[in-house]
Amino acid sequence: MAGNSIGQLFKVTTFGESHGLALGGVVDGVPAGLELDEADLQVDLDRRKPGQSRYTTQRREGDEIKILSGVFEGKTTGTSIGLLIENTDQRSKDYSKIKDVFRPGHGDYSYWHKYGHRDYRGGGRSSARETAIRVAAGGIAKKYLKQVHGVEIHACLSQLGPIKAEQFDWQQVEQNPFFFPDVTKLDALDEYMRDLKKQGDSVGAKVKVVAKGVPVGLGEPVFDRLDAELAHSLMSINAVKGVEIGDGFEVVEQKGSEHRDELTPDGFTSNHAGGVLAGISTGQDIIASIALKPTSSITIPGQSINTQNESVEMITKGRHDPCVGIRAIPIAEAMMAITLMDHLLRQRGQNPHVELSHGPIPAQRT
Amino acid sequence: MAGNSIGQLFKVTTFGESHGLALGGVVDGVPAGLELDEADLQVDLDRRKPGQSRYTTQRREGDEIKILSGVFEGKTTGTSIGLLIENTDQRSKDYSKIKDVFRPGHGDYSYWHKYGHRDYRGGGRSSARETAIRVAAGGIAKKYLKQVHGVEIHACLSQLGPIKAEQFDWQQVEQNPFFFPDVTKLDALDEYMRDLKKQGDSVGAKVKVVAKGVPVGLGEPVFDRLDAELAHSLMSINAVKGVEIGDGFEVVEQKGSEHRDELTPDGFTSNHAGGVLAGISTGQDIIASIALKPTSSITIPGQSINTQNESVEMITKGRHDPCVGIRAIPIAEAMMAITLMDHLLRQRGQNPHVELSHGPIPAQRT
Amino acid sequence: MAGNSIGQLFKVTTFGESHGLALGGVVDGVPAGLELDEADLQVDLDRRKPGQSRYTTQRREGDEIKILSGVFEGKTTGTSIGLLIENTDQRSKDYSKIKDVFRPGHGDYSYWHKYGHRDYRGGGRSSARETAIRVAAGGIAKKYLKQVHGVEIHACLSQLGPIKAEQFDWQQVEQNPFFFPDVTKLDALDEYMRDLKKQGDSVGAKVKVVAKGVPVGLGEPVFDRLDAELAHSLMSINAVKGVEIGDGFEVVEQKGSEHRDELTPDGFTSNHAGGVLAGISTGQDIIASIALKPTSSITIPGQSINTQNESVEMITKGRHDPCVGIRAIPIAEAMMAITLMDHLLRQRGQNPHVELSHGPIPAQRT
Amino acid sequence: MAGNSIGQLFKVTTFGESHGLALGGVVDGVPAGLELDEADLQVDLDRRKPGQSRYTTQRREGDEIKILSGVFEGKTTGTSIGLLIENTDQRSKDYSKIKDVFRPGHGDYSYWHKYGHRDYRGGGRSSARETAIRVAAGGIAKKYLKQVHGVEIHACLSQLGPIKAEQFDWQQVEQNPFFFPDVTKLDALDEYMRDLKKQGDSVGAKVKVVAKGVPVGLGEPVFDRLDAELAHSLMSINAVKGVEIGDGFEVVEQKGSEHRDELTPDGFTSNHAGGVLAGISTGQDIIASIALKPTSSITIPGQSINTQNESVEMITKGRHDPCVGIRAIPIAEAMMAITLMDHLLRQRGQNPHVELSHGPIPAQRT
Repeated sequence: MAGNSIGQLFKVTTFGESHGLALGGVVDGVPAGLELDEADLQVDLDRRKPGQSRYTTQRREGDEIKILSGVFEGKTTGTSIGLLIENTDQRSKDYSKIKDVFRPGHGDYSYWHKYGHRDYRGGGRSSARETAIRVAAGGIAKKYLKQVHGVEIHACLSQLGPIKAEQFDWQQVEQNPFFFPDVTKLDALDEYMRDLKKQGDSVGAKVKVVAKGVPVGLGEPVFDRLDAELAHSLMSINAVKGVEIGDGFEVVEQKGSEHRDELTPDGFTSNHAGGVLAGISTGQDIIASIALKPTSSITIPGQSINTQNESVEMITKGRHDPCVGIRAIPIAEAMMAITLMDHLLRQRGQNPHVELSHGPIPAQRT
Repeated sequence: MAGNSIGQLFKVTTFGESHGLALGGVVDGVPAGLELDEADLQVDLDRRKPGQSRYTTQRREGDEIKILSGVFEGKTTGTSIGLLIENTDQRSKDYSKIKDVFRPGHGDYSYWHKYGHRDYRGGGRSSARETAIRVAAGGIAKKYLKQVHGVEIHACLSQLGPIKAEQFDWQQVEQNPFFFPDVTKLDALDEYMRDLKKQGDSVGAKVKVVAKGVPVGLGEPVFDRLDAELAHSLMSINAVKGVEIGDGFEVVEQKGSEHRDELTPDGFTSNHAGGVLAGISTGQDIIASIALKPTSSITIPGQSINTQNESVEMITKGRHDPCVGIRAIPIAEAMMAITLMDHLLRQRGQNPHVELSHGPIPAQRT
Repeated sequence: MAGNSIGQLFKVTTFGESHGLALGGVVDGVPAGLELDEADLQVDLDRRKPGQSRYTTQRREGDEIKILSGVFEGKTTGTSIGLLIENTDQRSKDYSKIKDVFRPGHGDYSYWHKYGHRDYRGGGRSSARETAIRVAAGGIAKKYLKQVHGVEIHACLSQLGPIKAEQFDWQQVEQNPFFFPDVTKLDALDEYMRDLKKQGDSVGAKVKVVAKGVPVGLGEPVFDRLDAELAHSLMSINAVKGVEIGDGFEVVEQKGSEHRDELTPDGFTSNHAGGVLAGISTGQDIIASIALKPTSSITIPGQSINTQNESVEMITKGRHDPCVGIRAIPIAEAMMAITLMDHLLRQRGQNPHVELSHGPIPAQRT
Repeated sequence: MAGNSIGQLFKVTTFGESHGLALGGVVDGVPAGLELDEADLQVDLDRRKPGQSRYTTQRREGDEIKILSGVFEGKTTGTSIGLLIENTDQRSKDYSKIKDVFRPGHGDYSYWHKYGHRDYRGGGRSSARETAIRVAAGGIAKKYLKQVHGVEIHACLSQLGPIKAEQFDWQQVEQNPFFFPDVTKLDALDEYMRDLKKQGDSVGAKVKVVAKGVPVGLGEPVFDRLDAELAHSLMSINAVKGVEIGDGFEVVEQKGSEHRDELTPDGFTSNHAGGVLAGISTGQDIIASIALKPTSSITIPGQSINTQNESVEMITKGRHDPCVGIRAIPIAEAMMAITLMDHLLRQRGQNPHVELSHGPIPAQRT
């Protein structure tokens, strides 16, 4: 399949380049009857939007979402939903300098080899600007999941460079510009980011995404396990280099007696698994973490080559995020929502005779 | 889509339960003309087979692969390849004790909730026994990738519980029963595993997979990026809880000036990216790591419930692997091979006018 | 996608060549809890089996179906179902004469050009023998549709060469070897077939398939309309050259006032549409017809070429059906069942909040 | 899969309702490097556009296509192409009369049952207006097929009601408003259409589509045969009730000795097969025909019901086509092009080592 779509029954297809006319997409498979308007989607787009704090790029994009179809009299009709965001801040600047040059750490080199012809303006299709439509599509999934099944999805920044959250207070997350759950680290974060900016450097980050209230039974063995599909959707976010479910890489040093989540009539006694056993949701919180690399768009010079294989020195100017993890919060939520939504519909379709139940206490089934 | 298939142009579909009549599958999309016989696939099945050393389960399975179609006069015909492994070691034992009980850490609970009816014998479809067919299918991909494109794929155990490889000697990997690249740690591993067995416990592991010689340009933006699809296929392996590409979670603490792989006319100067930029292969080694949880089948008692939501105490007897990471080596190679093979065919299909080139030196393109 | 699969939520994948070791397949997406055993599937396989009457090929194939997985204690588990039919009647005959020659009207020429290497024994993968697994897979769908939704699917031969059914008596269909609904034409059919055999020639046929009791609302606009997917699945049957839904090609000469099916509170007053409006089922009978070409395997000599582009004269000996339409009856039913089953699950998945209703009287919906 | 997409490697996804804000879509999988601009697509949109002659609806739609992404410096980049047509002629008329009523022969009844909530304005998503984006997407495929492979696709009206073309002159087709290949029947057509208009009735039609220059080897056995996929894509066009490949339903009365296309060193001696053998293209012309029903939007009253299951009398006013077959010409070409394009890319992907050749003379293959 051509690669600009994700999902089976809930399917999102996107288009658009960083500096093109518009970003857009199609959300197919939204059940009929869901109340929906643009304001529902704008909320998360605004959380993702650049220029929201001093810690993110000062580039200005309106990111105003339009719903072009699939909603009638305020409710979805079950037909495909067309989404559009017009690009409004394309400065017509001179790109001739980067036209034939590969910025290190970017997709320039791999795109050029793959296609032989590329839109070099601001990364073109490989720009993280593309994720705006994901956030809008994810907003539809989030609304459905919450309204119909009571599922809530939240993400936060759990680590920025060397600074880790040691307290988790979800209330805090939307109160600070870092989406950080540990209020005691905010000053340290502020200081770290100021230093980074002075250096003209960037830094990596870790983001945690949690879904609460997910019914038991989502995920299709054996290849479309819920965790495998989450790994797919989360790893498809720009700059992500690692995905963990539950305890993730900590399991390497765990013993079986320690890792396995025991069960009592009141439910599970722990959640090392992150809400997924054998690829199927258990009704516990779905917990995932992702590692985001430091952006390669920095002002510290680096060596590279051009399309003629000649040495060049690169300095990436322009308005860039020193830590892309911050703006990735709503994107991670969106991708989690898209995958859960798809699997919810798939479970309804594959096992129409099984009632969705919410764990951890198993319903009497006979 | 029903979930027992993976891949688009190179597509693998599997069936079979741990204690059923047979495991099998269909490999669709193998180009015509590849020399292939059962011996090609048996090699990796034997590497995966239980009972190969004292450190893995002593269960005995012949795991003899049969090719039922798609090969004629020693060569593939382009039609679908039917694979079959008959189950020969199903002891007809009494399963009535585990019939209504959920083993902690296993898929029993989630399968029961998802389907309402499950094959409880040895995990049924959720058993890792299912991966035998993946290994066979991966063997076809490995042969094609090597023969036609010179791509070689190898995996090793990079960590077992607290014991990490500090030297990487690929020659060593196939010389020891741990598939461990650090010969200086073999005694420690032996001792650790003996202790573990005495305790009746199990432990996690980390496995590294590397593909060498991959052409530039594999991976389809934006959702079917090569790294996203690798995350999908690797996370679909039983017991995997985390996937890393390149530096993986280390990027969280890296700076941009440190992480970005610079380019010279002689090629990249480093490979922090793990061979993938913007979701597309760069021609460098593709490097991935996975975290495998400790198996939950241990003899230390644990608390659980039955389908009537009553407390029960569980002891999982039987012949189980104390560290599933060891036998996961050929499985990880197989999944990497399946995904690369699929993307190789997809790139030929999506961009038939672009020659596949091998990095890191860019070909003159005009 | 590799082409040996059909369906999305109910997905059938097949493998096997006419003269290979076995035919087989995987049926993925069968909901858990359906009672199923081999006898359920054998019924239709026996209806399709050669040698059932003097009017079909006298080749003998046991066509004994085995279920290898996905069924436990007599019920489906929701996991993939492996199917196998071992080939037992492969006479080891000398194929050297047809090895390098293209039989006119067969796939020899197109397969050779497509793949460059082909299994020339009896048509290999392009043989209609492949449909045996479709019939088995369709048997699963038929059972589910009937048991859970009361849907019944029947096909009959509506025309053989110049002889058309003018009376439709479904009771008759299973009483005669032609599956013909018009008892007054049986003598004519017998005589026609005897003459045909003397001539060493073959003839085309028309087959009608009808599904009764299909719920309203199956079919996904706009490309996966129910009629479009039926056209796909029916046209994928060997030898089919035309597909009609409802009045089919008769609509060309109809007026709108004549064609449109009017509605009264008691239901539709006619069914020119064949049970599908705008690609979605209406609750009326789904009616489709297919045209099957005369088999090209005849003993009348024909001119052809070999792989060296030299003229050759062809006489296709062997045991062939003079009218492939007769044995196509259960195949057409199977393909109709597979497509309806898939769309039933898809409608449950895409619109879980909408109750399936059976037309033609619309339920009060508020 | 949600149903608003068609194709695998060349994939078209559409959105938009008849009276919504806009129609749009995403064309994914166009190889990089194809010269493309809006004018390339506008040509066919103008051929489809209403109001082009007195024989089609006088509704006025600008149908101006915009390319929003995927093209840079005049050439495709390999990334997804966003398409948009803004709706400009939505008269804000009063729909309250048809809001709760099912127009006979339309999708109103089936949509309402499927979704429970529908956009009743002008048919909403079930309107043929949706095909405008198919025509634009097909235009991309047509350009690529012609430019890279010399494939040309043309359709014509071969029958309108009782009036059949008896001469086939392709030069004529674009010279008359009926796209009719038989100049001797133009007066009869004109008279017939005038009468029809007076009666307030509509009539069916037959459209023939032919692709010339298609390479040998397109089509994926066994379910994704080229003819099966063509049947799917052509049957997905609004109002189509039948699809034929080659001789179509005429094969029912043909003998094998008559139907099979013989081969000589100079090529095939006939083309009864319509360019497809065993589901794979032969290099001959691909020939398909479709039957289009008479539109149900006529001014002759008809009986129907409303959502309360009460009797109502319907007269469909408004600007409608008395014969939808006329405007279907570019739509049929577009769907043929989309399917051929997809299979061309799939053949490159599935069999990268096989050279595409053009029949009928087989290349020496060793």
